[in-house]
Amino acid sequence: MRDASAPIGVFDSGVGGLTVLAALRARLPHERFVYLGDTARLPYGTKTGHTVARYALQAARCLMQRQVKLLVIACNTASAVAIEPLSSASELAGVPVIGVVEPGADAAVARSSSGRIAVIGTESTIRGGAYERAIEKRRPDAVVTGRACPLFVALAEEGWVHGAVPTEVARTYLESLVSNADGAAHDTLVLGCTHFPVLAEVIASVCGPRVALVDSADTTAEAVAARLEHEGLRAAVTASTPAPVLLATDGAERFARVGAQFLGLPLAAQDVEIVDL
Amino acid sequence: MRDASAPIGVFDSGVGGLTVLAALRARLPHERFVYLGDTARLPYGTKTGHTVARYALQAARCLMQRQVKLLVIACNTASAVAIEPLSSASELAGVPVIGVVEPGADAAVARSSSGRIAVIGTESTIRGGAYERAIEKRRPDAVVTGRACPLFVALAEEGWVHGAVPTEVARTYLESLVSNADGAAHDTLVLGCTHFPVLAEVIASVCGPRVALVDSADTTAEAVAARLEHEGLRAAVTASTPAPVLLATDGAERFARVGAQFLGLPLAAQDVEIVDL
Repeated sequence: MRDASAPIGVFDSGVGGLTVLAALRARLPHERFVYLGDTARLPYGTKTGHTVARYALQAARCLMQRQVKLLVIACNTASAVAIEPLSSASELAGVPVIGVVEPGADAAVARSSSGRIAVIGTESTIRGGAYERAIEKRRPDAVVTGRACPLFVALAEEGWVHGAVPTEVARTYLESLVSNADGAAHDTLVLGCTHFPVLAEVIASVCGPRVALVDSADTTAEAVAARLEHEGLRAAVTASTPAPVLLATDGAERFARVGAQFLGLPLAAQDVEIVDL
Repeated sequence: MRDASAPIGVFDSGVGGLTVLAALRARLPHERFVYLGDTARLPYGTKTGHTVARYALQAARCLMQRQVKLLVIACNTASAVAIEPLSSASELAGVPVIGVVEPGADAAVARSSSGRIAVIGTESTIRGGAYERAIEKRRPDAVVTGRACPLFVALAEEGWVHGAVPTEVARTYLESLVSNADGAAHDTLVLGCTHFPVLAEVIASVCGPRVALVDSADTTAEAVAARLEHEGLRAAVTASTPAPVLLATDGAERFARVGAQFLGLPLAAQDVEIVDL
C-alpha cells in the first residue's frame, strides 16, 4: 500500500538530473525527494542500452528500499531504454515510473510550428531514437533530426558554460541544424540531456531567436504532479520545503561541487550519502 | 610457474590505453597481448581512488584468468591509486605489475633542464599527486605543477583533435603553465593521461617549441621489455606480430570506432569481445 507521505525517488547517472529535481521541488514544494546519482558508473550516454537498463534496475531497487511512492528517471539515456523494463518489473510493486522523454516530446510538439524539430543528447539517447518515436507518435508529420553532442556533457561537468570554448563547440554541433540556407531550418531544439540546460544561454546564442529551446524538466514536473493527483498520492502541505535526500555511488565531494550549479542550491560533501548498488 | 609464451595483460578504463598497447607492440613485436578496457564503467578519472582501486582489482582478476605473465596498468588514474594494492594482491600470484606513472616520471626527469615540470591528467590523477611524488623522488629540487584537463578526454573520445575547439580548450588549460611572463615557465609537460597523445599536435602548438611533451607510452614499453628480460619471460621470436586480443566490458562497436585511432590499426566490432567483470 503506497503512502502519500512517502518520498518521490529521482535517479540519474550523475548530477545532471538535479536540473529535474530543481523543477520538481519548485512545482511540488511539499513533497519529500530522494535523489540517487550513479556517479560510480557515469556517464550512461556512451554505454549500450542493455547495460544502462541493468544499471537503472539496480538504482530503482535502491530507491525502493527507501519506500518511494513514485519513481522519476531524470536521465534521458535511462528513460529512453529503461522505462519499459522498469514499468514492468514486478519488484517495483506497481510504483509509477515517469521518465523525461515523453514529457519532453509533449513540450516540443507544443512549441513547434513547422514540425521540424531537432533533438540533441548523448550518443546513446540519439542512437536509440526514443525522442523521434515519441514526437512522431504525437505529430506524425513531424521531421525529427537527432544529433549526439557528448562534449556538452563534459563542458557542463567542468562548469565551462560561457565564453569561447562552449560557443565554438555549440557552433560545430548545431550550425547545420539551425542554418536556414535551404529554408528548412528546425524551429525547435530539444535539450535531450539533463546536463544541457546549464548551457542553454550559449546554445540559444548560436541558434538565434527563431529557434525555441525545450527542456523536459518543467514538463516532467507537471507530469509527476498530475500522476500524484490521479493516484491520490499528493503529500500534505508542509510549513517549508523539505530538503532532498541526496545519494550517490561515488565521490560526495565532487557531487556537491558540480551538483550545486545544477540544483541551484549550495551543497556540501556531507549533504551527500554514498551508497553501493 | 609463469610461462614465457603466455600473453601480457594490459588494462585501462577504456580505449585510451590503446596508445600504450601500440607502443608495447612496436617495442615487443613477438609478444602476445590481451587488452581489457572497462568501458562499462569509464571514465575512472572522476571517481574516487577507493572505487578505482576496486575496479582495477576486478580487471586484474579477469586478465589472470587469461594466464597473463605480466600486467600493465595502461591508465594513469589506475596506476596512481592501484599499483600498490595490485602488486601486493595474493591472487595475482607474483605476476609483475607495471604502471605508466613511474616510466612517465623517468621520461620527464630525463627531458627537463630546469626541473620545472607540468603534469596534466584527469581530476583523479592530479588530485592524487602520484606524478609529483614520482618526479620528486627522482629529482628532489623539481618544481611540479599539476593541472586537471578533463575536457581533453572528451575531445579525444569525440575525435576532435584538430581545429578551433581543441586549440581553444588547450589554450584555456595550458597558457598559464607555459607563459613566460615571470621567466618561470615549465620546460616539460607530462601527458599524464593515455588519451592525451592523440591531442599532442594541438597541445604542442599552444605550448610552443620551448616545452618538451612527454608521454609515458614509450618509456612504459621500455620498462616492460626490461622486466621481461630480467625475469626470463621474453617470448620466442615469431614470424609476424600476433594480433592483440581485445576485451571490453561494454560497447564493442564504439570501442572499435574510437579505439582504432588510439591503436593506429583498423578495428571492427567483431574484433572486440565483451566480458563481465
